[in-house]
Amino acid sequence: MANKPRKADLFDPNCPSRDVLDLIGSKWSMLLLCALYDSKTRTGQLKRKVQGISQKMLTQTLREMQQNGIVKRISYPEVPPRVEYELTELGYSLAELVVKMEQWIVKHHFVILKAKAQRQCSAVKGGQTR
Amino acid sequence: MANKPRKADLFDPNCPSRDVLDLIGSKWSMLLLCALYDSKTRTGQLKRKVQGISQKMLTQTLREMQQNGIVKRISYPEVPPRVEYELTELGYSLAELVVKMEQWIVKHHFVILKAKAQRQCSAVKGGQTR
Repeated sequence: MANKPRKADLFDPNCPSRDVLDLIGSKWSMLLLCALYDSKTRTGQLKRKVQGISQKMLTQTLREMQQNGIVKRISYPEVPPRVEYELTELGYSLAELVVKMEQWIVKHHFVILKAKAQRQCSAVKGGQTR
Repeated sequence: MANKPRKADLFDPNCPSRDVLDLIGSKWSMLLLCALYDSKTRTGQLKRKVQGISQKMLTQTLREMQQNGIVKRISYPEVPPRVEYELTELGYSLAELVVKMEQWIVKHHFVILKAKAQRQCSAVKGGQTR
């Protein structure tokens, strides 16, 4: 009988699940998952949507997501060639969670940045010698 | 009248919400949020739990999380000094989402790694010239 796979433990650096965290726990993967959440998208559109991503990082992240079965690459036999990326069923279930995190950031970022600015301001005032 | 803050757009690299994504979209922040989800924890315990994190990265990430109002630092007036970290209410609402992502990884990582291994195997076979 084959060994039952061990339960994953993300806190253990030797657990293979850390590889999955390395991929998912990156801002570019998270942004690409959000960008692909609504519909399949061409590479150029992805690059325009996820502003600031380099061509190298886009290609590399999409390749890793494809290798991990999160995204599928659809190549149309057309001239000029057309390539689109689409979330797999697995990828969609992950993107649902990431979109919730995106919504959390959109909702709370102003409070976070305000708190940060106030702390920095207090630190500066505390450093003044009047 | 003060200007109403603009709605955040994570896809825009100039939107301040990207700073929040930079913090949250990192594996160490995600692991620390999971580690702090159950209870407040001492620095040494965090380091032992989140295996593989360096002292520098632990200190830096905790400081950033504290500055962003996600974590609070509790210093007890004892000898030797005792310091604990605890999620704020805001941090707890974020940690709930991150724990769901952790659970997703634990549930799906075996399928992902199997798919990846199969793809790599096919690529090697495809490269063979028999």
